[in-house]
Amino acid sequence: MFDSISMIPVGLVHNLVHTPADDIWGGLVSRIDLDASRFTAESLTGLNDFSHVEVIFSFHRVGESEVEPEARHPRGRKDWPKVGIFAQRGKNRPNRIGVTVCKLKSVDGASLWVEGLDAIDGTPVLDIKPYVREFGPREETRQPSWATELMAGYWSSAR
Amino acid sequence: MFDSISMIPVGLVHNLVHTPADDIWGGLVSRIDLDASRFTAESLTGLNDFSHVEVIFSFHRVGESEVEPEARHPRGRKDWPKVGIFAQRGKNRPNRIGVTVCKLKSVDGASLWVEGLDAIDGTPVLDIKPYVREFGPREETRQPSWATELMAGYWSSAR
Repeated sequence: MFDSISMIPVGLVHNLVHTPADDIWGGLVSRIDLDASRFTAESLTGLNDFSHVEVIFSFHRVGESEVEPEARHPRGRKDWPKVGIFAQRGKNRPNRIGVTVCKLKSVDGASLWVEGLDAIDGTPVLDIKPYVREFGPREETRQPSWATELMAGYWSSAR
Repeated sequence: MFDSISMIPVGLVHNLVHTPADDIWGGLVSRIDLDASRFTAESLTGLNDFSHVEVIFSFHRVGESEVEPEARHPRGRKDWPKVGIFAQRGKNRPNRIGVTVCKLKSVDGASLWVEGLDAIDGTPVLDIKPYVREFGPREETRQPSWATELMAGYWSSAR
C-alpha cells in the first residue's frame, strides 16, 4: 500500500554518550557535523540568528524486531497506563525518528554545537530546522500526568 | 559515507487541500488514517489525553532536483536575507521531512483528526508523537525578524 521512502543522513552527532539512556540528557553538549561531501557552511547560513534548532534524527540502534506498535506501559512502569506507540515518544517506534528541540550554542563552518540533544554519539541526523515560535503549539497544551512524571528527570544534568 | 535509511509511511493525510501552498493553513482540519495492514486503534491508545500531536511527514511532491542546499532568500523575498536550507523550514530540503505541532481534535479507531497540519491531501505520514511540553524549548527563544514576518499569514484561516 505504501511505497518506502529512502533518506540519506545529512550529518552525524558527536558527543560523550555511547550507550542509550532513559534520563539525564540535560547539559549535554553535542557537535553535529554535516556530511562534507554534500554540504558546506552555506547550508547553515543565518542559523545563528535562531536560539534553538529542531534536530530530526534516527534511533539507529533500534532493530526492526524491537519496534512495538502495541500498547504498553512506558518504561515498563505498571503504575502508568498502557499507551500505544503514537501516544508516547519512546525510541522503539516505526521509522525510528527522533525529534528534539535543542539550544544552539554555535555554528562553526559546516558544524554546529547544540545543548540538550538526547541522542548518542554516532547518531545519524536526518534534518535540522530552525525553531520558529509559530511552529510550536498555538494553543494551551494538556498532557497526562504520567508524561510529566516521566519527564521529571529527563533534562536533569547529574551525568 | 552514510548508509541510506528506508522508511515506510505509517499513514496518510486526508484533507481538502490538493495543491501545495505557502500560507493560510489555519483552521484546516485533516484526518490521518493509519495503515490498517499494520496498525490498529491500539497504537493510538492514550493519545486522547494529549491536546496536541507532532506530525512528521514527507514533502512527497518535492523532486530530488528541487532540493536546494545553497543559501537563498526564503520565498524569493529579496528584502529578507539569504539563508541556508537548515536555517529555514522550506519544503525543498534534503530528506523532505516536515514536522508540525497540531491540535488533536479526536481519535477514532485507527484514525485521528487534527487541526493546523500544513500538509496536502495524500501526504505520507512518517510518525506521530504526542506533544510533550518538556520537549519544547527549555529556555526563552529568539528568531530573526524575517521568520516572524514569514509566519504572519501562515496560520491565518482565510482559505
